[in-house]
Amino acid sequence: MSDSLLEALINLLGERVSTAAVVLAYHGKDESHHATAPPDIVVFPESSEEVATIVRLCAEAQTPIIPFGAGTSLEGGISAVHGGVCIDMTRMNRIIQINVDDLDVTVEAGVTRKQLNTDLRDTGLFFPIDPGADATLGGMASTRASGTNAVRYGTMRENVLNVKAVLADGRLIQTGGRARKSAAGYDLTRMFVGAEGTLGVITEVTVRLYGVPEAISAAVCGFPSIDAAVRCCMLTIQSGIPVARVELLDSAQMRACIQYSDLDSEPVPTLFFEFHGSQASVREQAATVQDIAADFGGGDFQWADRTEDRNKLWQARHDALYAALTLKPGARAWSTDVCVPISRLADCIEETRSDIETSSLTATMVGHVGDGNFHVIFLLDPDRPQDFTEAQRINDRMVTRAIAMDGTCTGEHGVGMGKQHCLVQEFGDALSIMRDLKRTLDPLNIMNPGKIFTVGS
Amino acid sequence: MSDSLLEALINLLGERVSTAAVVLAYHGKDESHHATAPPDIVVFPESSEEVATIVRLCAEAQTPIIPFGAGTSLEGGISAVHGGVCIDMTRMNRIIQINVDDLDVTVEAGVTRKQLNTDLRDTGLFFPIDPGADATLGGMASTRASGTNAVRYGTMRENVLNVKAVLADGRLIQTGGRARKSAAGYDLTRMFVGAEGTLGVITEVTVRLYGVPEAISAAVCGFPSIDAAVRCCMLTIQSGIPVARVELLDSAQMRACIQYSDLDSEPVPTLFFEFHGSQASVREQAATVQDIAADFGGGDFQWADRTEDRNKLWQARHDALYAALTLKPGARAWSTDVCVPISRLADCIEETRSDIETSSLTATMVGHVGDGNFHVIFLLDPDRPQDFTEAQRINDRMVTRAIAMDGTCTGEHGVGMGKQHCLVQEFGDALSIMRDLKRTLDPLNIMNPGKIFTVGS
Repeated sequence: MSDSLLEALINLLGERVSTAAVVLAYHGKDESHHATAPPDIVVFPESSEEVATIVRLCAEAQTPIIPFGAGTSLEGGISAVHGGVCIDMTRMNRIIQINVDDLDVTVEAGVTRKQLNTDLRDTGLFFPIDPGADATLGGMASTRASGTNAVRYGTMRENVLNVKAVLADGRLIQTGGRARKSAAGYDLTRMFVGAEGTLGVITEVTVRLYGVPEAISAAVCGFPSIDAAVRCCMLTIQSGIPVARVELLDSAQMRACIQYSDLDSEPVPTLFFEFHGSQASVREQAATVQDIAADFGGGDFQWADRTEDRNKLWQARHDALYAALTLKPGARAWSTDVCVPISRLADCIEETRSDIETSSLTATMVGHVGDGNFHVIFLLDPDRPQDFTEAQRINDRMVTRAIAMDGTCTGEHGVGMGKQHCLVQEFGDALSIMRDLKRTLDPLNIMNPGKIFTVGS
Repeated sequence: MSDSLLEALINLLGERVSTAAVVLAYHGKDESHHATAPPDIVVFPESSEEVATIVRLCAEAQTPIIPFGAGTSLEGGISAVHGGVCIDMTRMNRIIQINVDDLDVTVEAGVTRKQLNTDLRDTGLFFPIDPGADATLGGMASTRASGTNAVRYGTMRENVLNVKAVLADGRLIQTGGRARKSAAGYDLTRMFVGAEGTLGVITEVTVRLYGVPEAISAAVCGFPSIDAAVRCCMLTIQSGIPVARVELLDSAQMRACIQYSDLDSEPVPTLFFEFHGSQASVREQAATVQDIAADFGGGDFQWADRTEDRNKLWQARHDALYAALTLKPGARAWSTDVCVPISRLADCIEETRSDIETSSLTATMVGHVGDGNFHVIFLLDPDRPQDFTEAQRINDRMVTRAIAMDGTCTGEHGVGMGKQHCLVQEFGDALSIMRDLKRTLDPLNIMNPGKIFTVGS
């Protein structure tokens, strides 16, 4: 790190530059099990133009740039593995324009999903994508995030209309407009969505919004086995019922959530459902799903119709990772993340469970099962490296299994540092195309280097 | 065109190589107003591996490659502007695998949308994307096509899960799996969707399927003015009613369709609706939309509930371009294609109508108005170049207007030859990124050269 770069950044941003050890440490650590790696400098820009200048200065100094949102990534996405300048986007948290009549909104990248929904409260609209953490929209776009509502509303892939991004040479571009569809040229929007900051820094995002449904109803249903719960979910999806949410929690995870979030439920394999629509449609969906659940031995639906009860239920689901950690105080969590075609979900979960049961590890399981996506949350003793080795072994087996089932090594957490070796298996020759794109757009390899893949290898 | 390339292609494909004038002429012409440009050779591969070998041979000879599906493009996408080898994909028309339980299907690129839906008939599933023509899935992926169902089911962008493609150097890659979501690396699938054959030749496509709704109901409703019809559509969308289709036809287009497709309707501005869902949900949607329509002076809904009546109605809509041509025998059609945020649709249509009314041209107007997308179909005298100049002028004004409204120069037809000058206006600096991608993936500029943009300029 050259002194002149630091000097230039201070000239540009004044006190919005930090090299304080505690600030550096905070910005080198996410919520994952990966080793921490602090940056050399943290900057706090307040506009796209400032980000562009920062990037130009870093490019001149050939210094790595790591965009940072809420720091809640789960695969080491923000780790400064080659040092460099961390761009903390949280001061860029303005809602730029809510277009109620077009059901879209443009925000700065540092706006969080909860902040956005709070701001939307009086419009009758909402933004459905909800990873567990209160992530920023820029971070969510960069990791192609999803969450509990994806089964009905899609992921960031389907919901980002446009991004404003700073390229590796400091140019500021926009990738799209606000039209609902376009056949104009290459899909640059989707090139930045999921690129994990390796192709540029996203500074603004325009996303789709949805009308708050006339009726919303949530319910919890326990099952005699995890297989029964999964098969209930599979038939629900295959029957074309437009459920808004269908989430699986295994008995260990339920035990943790009941305690952590004070839920009035039994510690058995459980599905959390939510139905959106008109009063009649919600009633109809719920009745059909209740019939399906009963066929799989599901218990009575426990309804959460009041807003506060629903919020409590979904907050509990979003806090699953934090709840799991209470099962083993002092443990480090490692959340896996495969996604398979829905018809293979029961097999994939069953085989994975069998791996876990024959291991010595403590783990829970949660899943956005309507998407075929689930997570094993390993609770690892930081002082036992053999635990990490064992988790890696089971995780690798999960990934191989998922890919063999035509699935993917990551449904929503991204590649970061942890899934790089899986991409070869998943993409084969196509991976070289990704590398070519990276080299083209970032010839100096300064944009979040060491993430997704190592260039040149 | 070197003799040795022709010889090598004949060695590979035998009689599945043609240089017959009539075959060349057929493959140089689409359904657009653009000048025809026949290729030098047409080949008819029967496998992805054959396509890969063809591309390798063409790369060695530095000869252009033009993929060809149904020949129904509307911006000159298949025109062999630099000569070369046309790869006719229509013999690659196998349905490779229908996964009923996963609601997806993998097909060869030469399968047409009607063929696919015929094959799906006994599965209870359907593929919703329906451009007017019976296009191939490969062509539809390449132009990021949509159609009447996009308002409910999305476009090719949202519905392609995976493509198999041959790169410019002859390598065969797959871009994805069959999982509903993935955060693994760059989104190569969406890089090929909409690339118009300029980055590679798509040989297989995996797309999402949907359950045939329990209830389907279609209706036609006439309005006192085009503005009233558009505003009815806007409010329908803004109210969050999940209409499956909402199509606008102006009075001239209705006159043409009534004649061409024997419709029992009035030649007034008209919306065609379709509602999908359970019996109750369809009734509910229909009732709400009838109320909205009445508020805008809409007439009684004319219902088409029987399958044959609905098929007739939608065939009429799909035949709109052919119907329009009967209004002016001998004319050449030029279909424009802008798309704007829904709140700007009425303004965009009104200003465009005013341009047309003050011109000397004959034109009709149709639109996938639920998406904010509409087409003016100009009917031009092929012997009057001034007609084309005038159409170009009005088209350019439409595009400028749409982009100023945060819209796009093409909702679904693609760029091809006709919209290249619009991309500068729409993307600014971001266009250079598209050119960089093109140069990276096709350094010899042999993949459908001269489409989307001229490399180097």
